Amino acid sequence: MTDPEARAWAYLSRVAEPPCPALAELVDRVGAVEAAEVIRRGDGDPQLVKFTAARREWDCAATDLEVLARLGGRLVTAHDPDWPLLAFTAFGGWNAKGRPDGHPPLVLWVIGEIGLDEVAARAAAIVGTRAASSYGEHVTAELATGLAARDVAVVSGGAYGIDGVAHRATLAAEGVTVAVLASGLDVCYPSGHAGLLRRIAEQGLLITEYPPGSRPSRHRFLTRNRLVAALSGATVVVEAGVRSGAANTASWARALGRSVGAVPGPVTSATSVGCHVLLREHGAHVVTRAEEIVELVGRCGELAPELPRPSSPLDELSDAERRVYEALPARAERTADQIAVICGLPPHEVLAPLSMLELAGLVVSRHGRWKLARPRQG
Amino acid sequence: MTDPEARAWAYLSRVAEPPCPALAELVDRVGAVEAAEVIRRGDGDPQLVKFTAARREWDCAATDLEVLARLGGRLVTAHDPDWPLLAFTAFGGWNAKGRPDGHPPLVLWVIGEIGLDEVAARAAAIVGTRAASSYGEHVTAELATGLAARDVAVVSGGAYGIDGVAHRATLAAEGVTVAVLASGLDVCYPSGHAGLLRRIAEQGLLITEYPPGSRPSRHRFLTRNRLVAALSGATVVVEAGVRSGAANTASWARALGRSVGAVPGPVTSATSVGCHVLLREHGAHVVTRAEEIVELVGRCGELAPELPRPSSPLDELSDAERRVYEALPARAERTADQIAVICGLPPHEVLAPLSMLELAGLVVSRHGRWKLARPRQG
Repeated sequence: MTDPEARAWAYLSRVAEPPCPALAELVDRVGAVEAAEVIRRGDGDPQLVKFTAARREWDCAATDLEVLARLGGRLVTAHDPDWPLLAFTAFGGWNAKGRPDGHPPLVLWVIGEIGLDEVAARAAAIVGTRAASSYGEHVTAELATGLAARDVAVVSGGAYGIDGVAHRATLAAEGVTVAVLASGLDVCYPSGHAGLLRRIAEQGLLITEYPPGSRPSRHRFLTRNRLVAALSGATVVVEAGVRSGAANTASWARALGRSVGAVPGPVTSATSVGCHVLLREHGAHVVTRAEEIVELVGRCGELAPELPRPSSPLDELSDAERRVYEALPARAERTADQIAVICGLPPHEVLAPLSMLELAGLVVSRHGRWKLARPRQG
Repeated sequence: MTDPEARAWAYLSRVAEPPCPALAELVDRVGAVEAAEVIRRGDGDPQLVKFTAARREWDCAATDLEVLARLGGRLVTAHDPDWPLLAFTAFGGWNAKGRPDGHPPLVLWVIGEIGLDEVAARAAAIVGTRAASSYGEHVTAELATGLAARDVAVVSGGAYGIDGVAHRATLAAEGVTVAVLASGLDVCYPSGHAGLLRRIAEQGLLITEYPPGSRPSRHRFLTRNRLVAALSGATVVVEAGVRSGAANTASWARALGRSVGAVPGPVTSATSVGCHVLLREHGAHVVTRAEEIVELVGRCGELAPELPRPSSPLDELSDAERRVYEALPARAERTADQIAVICGLPPHEVLAPLSMLELAGLVVSRHGRWKLARPRQG
C-alpha cells in the first residue's frame, strides 16, 4: 500500500460511521484514493454526501497512521492477502438485505503478527457477561485452554468477565487469541484491561474497524459484535443475563450461518438465564467441553469423543443371566428351583445362565446350591 | 370385583414376572378366573406354561389380598373405571413390537384415594439420581412445589435423592404425588423411606405391579420405569449421572411419545452430566421453571410466561435517537454540529432526535448546547 493509499483508507475509515455500504460501493468502483477525493469535495451520491457531511472536513489520516505505526499496527483492506475473505462472504456482500449493518468492514486496524485469514479458518468466539460468576470464569478458562490445545483461535471482545478470562486463559495456554474492539486501537476500554490488551497484541491480534481515538458506544459494541461472529466458526455464550451483548453476538452468528453454542449452568443463577434462553428458544448447541466446540468449528469429522461411562462385569450379561444373578440374595445360597421361582423363569432355563455366571466368576455352586461369588453391596 | 375374581387377579399378578404378554392375552380371551384355572392346571399355550412353570403352584393370593386390605389398598385392573386407559394406550397394546417389556401392566396394586386416571390426565414425572447434590435437591423442590401450585401431579420412584425430594416437596405443597414402586406395597424400599411412603399413600398414590412381598431388583426397577413414564405427560430429569435409571425412564418416555425435559446444571457437576447428554443428544427440552413443565404436560396453550426482562427508557428510542444520545459525553455539553460529527449523522439529522430526547427528559438544552439530563453511570 502506498502512502497516499494508506492516507485515503485511513480518511475513509473515519469519514462515515461504519459500516457504510454507499461508501464501500464508491471505493469498490473508483478506488480508495479517488473515493477520498470525491468525498472531500462533497461530490457524488447525495445519500453518501449526507452520511459523510459531519466528518468530511475532519482529516486526521496522517496522525492516525502515525499512531498506528507507533503501536506497531497495520491497516488491512480487502486488497490484502490476509483479508478474511471467506469469513466475510457470510455478510452476502454490500447488497445483503435484512439486518441493518450486516456488512463487512471497509478497513480493519490491526495489531499482531498473525494473519486474519489464518485465524478465521479455525476460530471460536467465547463471549459472555461482564458480571461473570466464578463458575462462568472457571468454565471459560477450561474451554479456552482446551481450544488452545486443539489449535482453535479464541475470539472475543475486550470486556471484563467472560471476555477477559477467555483471553487470559488462551494466552496462558500459548494459544492464539483475538480481541475485536469497539474503539480505536489506542483507546483502552475498559482501562483496567490495558495490560491484557497489550499482551493480546503481542501474542494474538487486536482488531477494530474504528480509527484511532474512537470511543466505544453501545451502537459500536453491537456493530462490533458482527465481526466477532463472522471471524468465528461458532459463537459460544458461557454466561449471560436475560438481556445481553452476548445474545446479540449469538444472533449475529445465527444470521451469518455460524453455529451457536451455550454453556448450561445452574437454573438458579441469573448469569445463566441468557444461556438457557438460547438453548430453549434459539436452538443453540449445549456446550460442556472444548471438544464439543471443536466439533462445531473444526474440520468435518472432528467429533467430540464419547464421555467415558462407568462399566461393570454385569454389562456383558444377557437378560436371563442378569435376572438369575439378581435373583440371588446378598449372602445366602439358593437351589436352581428357588432361583427359578424368584426370577420367574422356567426351572430348566436357569441352569445355563447359572453356568455362564459361574464361568464369569460371578457365582459359585456347591452341592447343587448357588450363591454370589462376592456378597452384593448396598 | 367378586372375591374369586380378586383372588384370580392376585394369583395371576404373581404367577408370571410382569409384564407377560402371553398371560395378558389369555386373560383377555377367557377372563381372569378361567385364566387362573388354566395356569394352575398347566394347560394351554406351551410358551405360557413355560413362563409360569416356576410359580404356578405358589398360590398365596388370599394372603396377598389380606395384606392389601390391611394396608387399605385395592387391586386395579383394566376393568376398573379409574384404569388409566388413555395413558396406557401409548404401549400400543399387547402387540407392541420393538422394546421388550413395552406392555401395560396386567394388575396394579394401589394405595390411595385418588383415581389413577384422574392423576394421569395431568402429571409430570420428576426423576433423577439418588446421589443428588444440594443444587439438584433445591431445584427439585422448586419444580415440585410449582407443579403442585398448578395442579399437576408429580410422579416418581421411591428412591433417595431426587425422587424423595420431589415427593416431600409436593406433599408439603399439598399437591398430589405418586410413587411407582419396583416392589410389593408392603416392602418398604429403601427402608429409610418407610415414613415418606406412608405419607404418600395417605395423601397421594402408591402404585406397583408387583404383589405383596416382592423384592425390588434391577430388572424390576427398569420395568417399573415404563409406568412412571406412561403415567406422566412429560418426564423431567433433574440430575443424573452419565449412566442412570433416570435416563432409562427418559428413554421410556420418548418411546411412548411423551415429552422429555432435562434441567441444566453446572457442566462441572458429575450429577448433571446425564442431563446434558439428554439435552445434547436426545433432544430433551431445557427445563428451568415449573411453568415450562406445565407447558409440556398441560392443556394446549398453557405456555410458560416470558421471563421478565429488565427495561430502560432507552429501549423506546429509535436508532438515530440512541446514536445521538450516546454521542453525548457523561457530563459535558456539545453543540448539534459536534454531536453530528461524533455520531456520524448529517448535522441537520441530529436536531429532530435531540428534540425527542428532550421531550423524553433524557437531555436538556441551553443556549444551543446539549447535555445529558442525568450524568451517565459507569
